[in-house]
Formats: sequence, C-alpha cells, structure tokens
Amino acid sequence: MTIQFKKVAILGVGLLGGSLGLNILQKKMAKEVVGFGRQAANLKLAKKKGLITHIAKTPEEAILGADLILLAAPVKSIAIYLKQIAALASKGTLVMDVGSTKSYIVKQAAELTKKKIVFVGAHPMAGLEKSGAAAAVETLYEGSRCLICFLPQTPAAIKKKVTIFWKQMGSQVIEVSAVKHDRLLGFTSHLPQMVSYALMSVVGDFVTGGDIKKFSGNGFKDMTRLAGSPGSMWLDICETNRENLILALNELRSKIDWMSHLLKANKWRELGDFFNQVSVQKVKVSK
Amino acid sequence: MTIQFKKVAILGVGLLGGSLGLNILQKKMAKEVVGFGRQAANLKLAKKKGLITHIAKTPEEAILGADLILLAAPVKSIAIYLKQIAALASKGTLVMDVGSTKSYIVKQAAELTKKKIVFVGAHPMAGLEKSGAAAAVETLYEGSRCLICFLPQTPAAIKKKVTIFWKQMGSQVIEVSAVKHDRLLGFTSHLPQMVSYALMSVVGDFVTGGDIKKFSGNGFKDMTRLAGSPGSMWLDICETNRENLILALNELRSKIDWMSHLLKANKWRELGDFFNQVSVQKVKVSK
Repeated sequence: MTIQFKKVAILGVGLLGGSLGLNILQKKMAKEVVGFGRQAANLKLAKKKGLITHIAKTPEEAILGADLILLAAPVKSIAIYLKQIAALASKGTLVMDVGSTKSYIVKQAAELTKKKIVFVGAHPMAGLEKSGAAAAVETLYEGSRCLICFLPQTPAAIKKKVTIFWKQMGSQVIEVSAVKHDRLLGFTSHLPQMVSYALMSVVGDFVTGGDIKKFSGNGFKDMTRLAGSPGSMWLDICETNRENLILALNELRSKIDWMSHLLKANKWRELGDFFNQVSVQKVKVSK
Repeated sequence: MTIQFKKVAILGVGLLGGSLGLNILQKKMAKEVVGFGRQAANLKLAKKKGLITHIAKTPEEAILGADLILLAAPVKSIAIYLKQIAALASKGTLVMDVGSTKSYIVKQAAELTKKKIVFVGAHPMAGLEKSGAAAAVETLYEGSRCLICFLPQTPAAIKKKVTIFWKQMGSQVIEVSAVKHDRLLGFTSHLPQMVSYALMSVVGDFVTGGDIKKFSGNGFKDMTRLAGSPGSMWLDICETNRENLILALNELRSKIDWMSHLLKANKWRELGDFFNQVSVQKVKVSK
C-alpha cells in the first residue's frame, strides 16, 4: 500500500526536509512538492537536486491547497509556521513536524486541532551533523526509528497513514507521549549534545588547535563530533526542553563530582568498580 | 632501511602488543618473537594467529637475551615488568612501552638507564575499545600517530631506530616530553573517557535499557562508545595521571555549571553564542 498526496508543502528544506521531499518524489507519493525556506540559494539547490518541484516565495504559497505539510525547521520556527498553518490550511490537511522536542510543539499545535487540521508530532532519529539541502539524501531514514506523538484524538486511519508514510521512508515508527519523549531524549540526546559542547570548549581552553590535532585520537573525535552541530537548532531544543535538560545536567554534574572525589581521595577500588559497572551497562545496551 | 632484531619480547600480547608482533613477523624484522601474558588462552591464540612465535612461561624467559622488549600491558603492570627488566636485561637492550601515561612510566624506568638498558616511552594513538590478541590486526597502526618521549640522554642513533620502527608500523612519530604528554592527553583523551563513563552512568540511572535502545541514536552511541572500554586499563591511567585529570574534571564541571546557569536564567543569547563559538572551534580542529 502506498499513500498519495496532491500537494506536499515542506517548510524548511534542509537535511531532514529535503530528504523527505526526495523520497516523496522518488517513490511517486506526490507529483507536487513545494518548498519554502529562508535561504534562496538553499531552495534553488533543493529544486536542482530534485528534493522539491516548486519553490514558494512565502509560507502562505506553500501552505495553501497542500494536503500534507511537513515542518522541518528548528523547533521555534516550527511554532511560527504552525500559526500560519492554523490560519490558512484546509480542514483534514495532515501536518507533521520533525522537530527534536515534542511537548512545546504539541502545545503550539492545539490551534490546528480546533480547526480540524490534523497534527502529528514526529521525531525521526536520523540527524547528522551536516545540514542543508546539500546534505539531503534518499537513504537518510533507511533503518532509522521515528518517534511519533499521536494526540489522544488522533483517528486510527491517520495513525495508519502516518505509520505507512514513515515505513516508506525506511523508518520504523515508535509511539510515545510528548512528555515521555522530552524526558527520555533530554537524557539520551540533549544531554550528550551539551556534554560534547562542554568537552570541546574545555579542551579548546587548555590545548591549542595545533596540539589538539597532534595529540588527540578517535576518542576525542567521536566525543566532540556533536559539538560541530549548528548552534541555532540546539538553542531551540534547550529553550523548549529546559527543565529536563537542567535536571540531566545536574545529574551529570553530580557524577563528575563523585568521580573527582574518588580521584582526590585515592579511592581506586571504588573508581574501578564504577568503570566496570558502567562498561557492563554500555555493553548491554549495545546488543 | 629496515631494522632487525634477534629476539623480541612482548610483555602483554593484547590488541597493541599483538599487533606489534604481527607486524614484526610479517615485515621480517625478527624471526623470534616471544610473548608473555597473564592469560594462557590469549597467548595460545596469539601464537595461532602468528602474533608471536613462542610463548614464555615467565617474564624472565621472555626478557633474557631479548634485544627489543615491548611492554604492552596496563600502566601499572608495565611498572612491575620494568623492575624485572632492570634486573635481567642485557646492556644495550631497547625497551619500549605503549602505555597511555608517560611521566609515571619514565620515572619507573630510571633504574634501566643506570644499567645501560635503553628505555623509550611510546604512546601509539591507535587504541580501539576492543581488546586482546583476538582483536590484533596488522593494520592497527597504519596512518596513526605515535607519541614518543625520548629521554635527555637518548642517543641520536636510538632516536633514528625508534622512528624507523614506528614508521614500519605505519605510524608517524611525534616527539613530546612526558610531562607535556600527560597534561595534554589528560584533556584530549583521559577527560573524554571520564565524560563517556559519566554520561553512560547518568543515562543508565534514569532510562531503562530497553528505552535506551528505542530512544537513542548515533549521538548517544558515539558519546558512550568509550564507556565500553576495559575499566582496569583506565583505572591505571587515572592513578598515574591523577593531578591532570582532577584539573580537567574540575574545568568540565565549571563549564557544565555555567551552561546550567544560562539555562536556569533563560540567557538564550549567551547560550547560543557559546554553542556557535564551540562549533567554530570544533570545525577548525577537524580540518
């Protein structure tokens, strides 16, 4: 079973949005995919690469008449688009975002539900540290998981449609509430990002760029890869998942304090036990 | 120019030591490579894989008559071997370790110099989270850097010999003092390792194993890869680079505190500026 759309609007044609457009067109799920975004050069490239068929000059132009609207901008920009969609989209239009926090977006989407526009929050776990239409590829979602926040009132037919949509992208749907999503991802995604920024910054404060290149290996490279991600996207995530992130950072700080204490007190047996216990934990979740 | 040895002893035939043995034999740098280690099964496998030609029953058996001794055990075990080498090795024997901290080892090796045994501290940056003879491969050192701590009294001929040895392994030699090595690596290697342990532990405290599998992506995987490393090796590193690591952890803690403060105080502009600045730093050192 494939699903068809008359007109798809993609607001934010970057890595995630562009890769969706490319899949939709390649898999013939729609003939018309209209893209809107802030950067003209990026949109031009998106059209050239076949990620979209048309460039919209305004969000309104993209939204009007679309039966599927995909929001693939940073979280706070999605909130702005949602206001325009509430004002302009037709009843029954399916609206999905691909933002990294969900409670804030679901709240902002309440207006859509009142107007019988169907909103579903999605978080495809398929990011890279690359960005923009230039990085979009058809295989981005292949083998990935997509976290979906259906609303209590989401009809079964929509659930099915959304599940098929993501399956066609190559993604396995996992249902989760927005609240649980933000709590869990605060630990498994947003905290690692903050840690990567903090680590890169500390090393940058104490070691020159030249020495970092000479005296670091794959461990450092992996641990600071995320620090190369665009700051604006992460700022929106911080702002919209603030409480969970404050909690997670506080816990990390306690753990660091505790490790420091063991080092200062020469408590080697306790530190060794801790390393071994964490190592076992890691191996377990890697299976 | 190739260099030849009569008898090579490898004390600790794991990933690093085993890969050295394999290279030495494959490149015909020696006909006899004698291995010693604590685990009989590991040594048997090493011989079967062609990493060594003989298994020694005791360190003494390996050390006696060797003109090259390679120490590839955890740092504190290296110190124990150094004592035996000081007592047993012949004048002029070249002894190299591959441990991750250098000041402690260089200090422990002082006795060798008195006995005209030549010691050079090496730290090949070619680790993996895998370990044991089973993981040893000929290509381990290809394209890697090897940090070398020559002593003030190291003769030029030995410097040349050691440089050629590592070049034959596929590794580029970078000279550095033991003190500078430990200070820099405290930030670029040992701190990332501690951070990876701390992160995995915090996430493990708050998220079930099943949920980690469902609700985490590549970022989490990369940031916790190091946490899968053997704890005993890292305990030795902590113990022998304690002061630098305490300093580095303290700086990380300050950075985490500062980020928490910005989040709590809703200082979004400052947080965004910080992300962007770190992101630029990361991109610079990745070039």
